[in-house]
Amino acid sequence: MADASEIMTVPARRGRAQRLTKGQAIKIINVSGTQVCDTWAFNAEDLREFMSMEHMRPTLGTIFPRQGHHLITNRRRPILLFETDTSPGIHDTLIAACDDYRYGLLGCTTYHDNCTDNLAAGMRQIGLTPPETPSPLNLWMNIPVDPEGKTAWGEPVSKPGDYVVLRAEMDCIVALSACPQDILPINGANRQITDIQYQVLA
Amino acid sequence: MADASEIMTVPARRGRAQRLTKGQAIKIINVSGTQVCDTWAFNAEDLREFMSMEHMRPTLGTIFPRQGHHLITNRRRPILLFETDTSPGIHDTLIAACDDYRYGLLGCTTYHDNCTDNLAAGMRQIGLTPPETPSPLNLWMNIPVDPEGKTAWGEPVSKPGDYVVLRAEMDCIVALSACPQDILPINGANRQITDIQYQVLA
Repeated sequence: MADASEIMTVPARRGRAQRLTKGQAIKIINVSGTQVCDTWAFNAEDLREFMSMEHMRPTLGTIFPRQGHHLITNRRRPILLFETDTSPGIHDTLIAACDDYRYGLLGCTTYHDNCTDNLAAGMRQIGLTPPETPSPLNLWMNIPVDPEGKTAWGEPVSKPGDYVVLRAEMDCIVALSACPQDILPINGANRQITDIQYQVLA
Repeated sequence: MADASEIMTVPARRGRAQRLTKGQAIKIINVSGTQVCDTWAFNAEDLREFMSMEHMRPTLGTIFPRQGHHLITNRRRPILLFETDTSPGIHDTLIAACDDYRYGLLGCTTYHDNCTDNLAAGMRQIGLTPPETPSPLNLWMNIPVDPEGKTAWGEPVSKPGDYVVLRAEMDCIVALSACPQDILPINGANRQITDIQYQVLA
């Protein structure tokens, strides 16, 4: 687990989870600038309460959360404040975590690393089991939506070293996955999966 | 439970659930034309597999499912074919089922009927418990999304008697809630909550 100043790594294609006490924050760093980071948050007192994209959208009135927004749970309470964002602010709330079923449909015939399993593995490392796989906040994932509602698989518009700071509004567990999607261009045209770094801030 | 020809009612503000065998279909009728119907589907063999908006969007490539689309589960399999739609095709996949927390935030100080509890009650009537509250397919709910991603609370554009037909692609349970939202205008400017009807088709 990270001290307040230590820089931690979510290795490329892997997941990690981090406890935050209310008032602490997590700085999540897009080292390469092209890496999507699937992000979840669970109430530390009751994992059945978690950050929920479908509950957040009606509260925020947008599909694109931005700096200054309170990110809310399936019980409609703020869990994280989106405090800082050095990137242009393109993040996704529409797309499920990838999973082995998805890679099967994309043509993979053997197991492919995936964010759903990374969430479970990251939580397990700190002795926890997620009650389900909530739809994640996909940091830096660029899913444009056209006026007819059609979605596309964009490349991140962030630059190397861009970061976000999410501040805990309750004691919580934040889980991160350095998304292993290397078939679609969501992690850049080169489809190179890279590390994410994070740091706990007081 | 409905025979193949009997017309069943989901009373205004309430929920019902219906078993379908693979190949059967459910015709869901917007009697008033202004009533939103939150809709879920669960694999009858394993309720942990269910129709999932966040898994459906990347497969369909749109936030607006339309006639002809295969609606898919959190295991990326078709569960319902969106076979017929007599309405202009405006349905929502973005907004969570309403719940008592939501009505509290909207100013209610006592219990308010809600789609989350209606799902549980409808399933309980046929002896089942949903494993969680998936984000629903909100039939006839009109949530416009502007080019910046901002959402609005529109009124239904459907007319009295409009219906959809959803055909089961696996044995499943379909749950319906005649959404009791009477504070926002999603069930029409008059905020009048009305019955939904349904019929099982061979």
